[in-house]
Amino acid sequence: MNQAEAMERASLVPVGRFASTYPSGEPHIIPVTFAVVGDAIVHMVDQKPKTTQRLQRIVNIEASPNVSLLVDEYDDDWDQLWWVRIDGLARVATSGSDWRDARSALIKKYAQYREWPPAGQVVYLEITKVTSWESKG
Amino acid sequence: MNQAEAMERASLVPVGRFASTYPSGEPHIIPVTFAVVGDAIVHMVDQKPKTTQRLQRIVNIEASPNVSLLVDEYDDDWDQLWWVRIDGLARVATSGSDWRDARSALIKKYAQYREWPPAGQVVYLEITKVTSWESKG
Repeated sequence: MNQAEAMERASLVPVGRFASTYPSGEPHIIPVTFAVVGDAIVHMVDQKPKTTQRLQRIVNIEASPNVSLLVDEYDDDWDQLWWVRIDGLARVATSGSDWRDARSALIKKYAQYREWPPAGQVVYLEITKVTSWESKG
Repeated sequence: MNQAEAMERASLVPVGRFASTYPSGEPHIIPVTFAVVGDAIVHMVDQKPKTTQRLQRIVNIEASPNVSLLVDEYDDDWDQLWWVRIDGLARVATSGSDWRDARSALIKKYAQYREWPPAGQVVYLEITKVTSWESKG
């Protein structure tokens, strides 16, 4: 699949896995709901009580903006497997048009967010590279 | 959930996302089928034609053994969400009892591997930390 097909396919999946790196260098990974906004992927830190692990990604991004989002869907038929990996640079938005655009995109994609509009920090991933793979059966 | 519950729950899921870091420091993430072997998580590099991206994890592990496997299952009911993250140190096995034990565990877990026994390099993740989270609804 080409890059446009990869982004289209990824955009329809409800969950991705977001990887950053601890300041000490180890990888950190967490599932996120996400939406595409122009040339970026956005997700929001949720409003539920957080453990230190869930806030870790903000600490990581401030130390190193290099992040990656993996989108895939498992299938017991291994000829149907595919994944899209979106690498980029992350920044955190807490207000302004970036924050509002991200929230709008999340509300548009997820009925759950329409019921409880999210109000946390937005993580903006500016896309620098899209890699994709699919099983050729 | 406690650590034993977290590992039990994770062990039943068919796919995890495996994160390592490039020698240059950026995170790298890929979906993997995996099995539990004692105090380790194992997966195998598959036999299909590989892109440079898929072999990247071996290069990464050789430069830095700190890796992480995330196991979660998405649900449209966000009160049902949970994840288990297994951090550890990775090493690559290409033969010997480590390799055989890993292959046996993968064949036991996956019918697909019984049909086509895997024969690639094994990535052994020796567990150092298990973190878990679940929505409390």
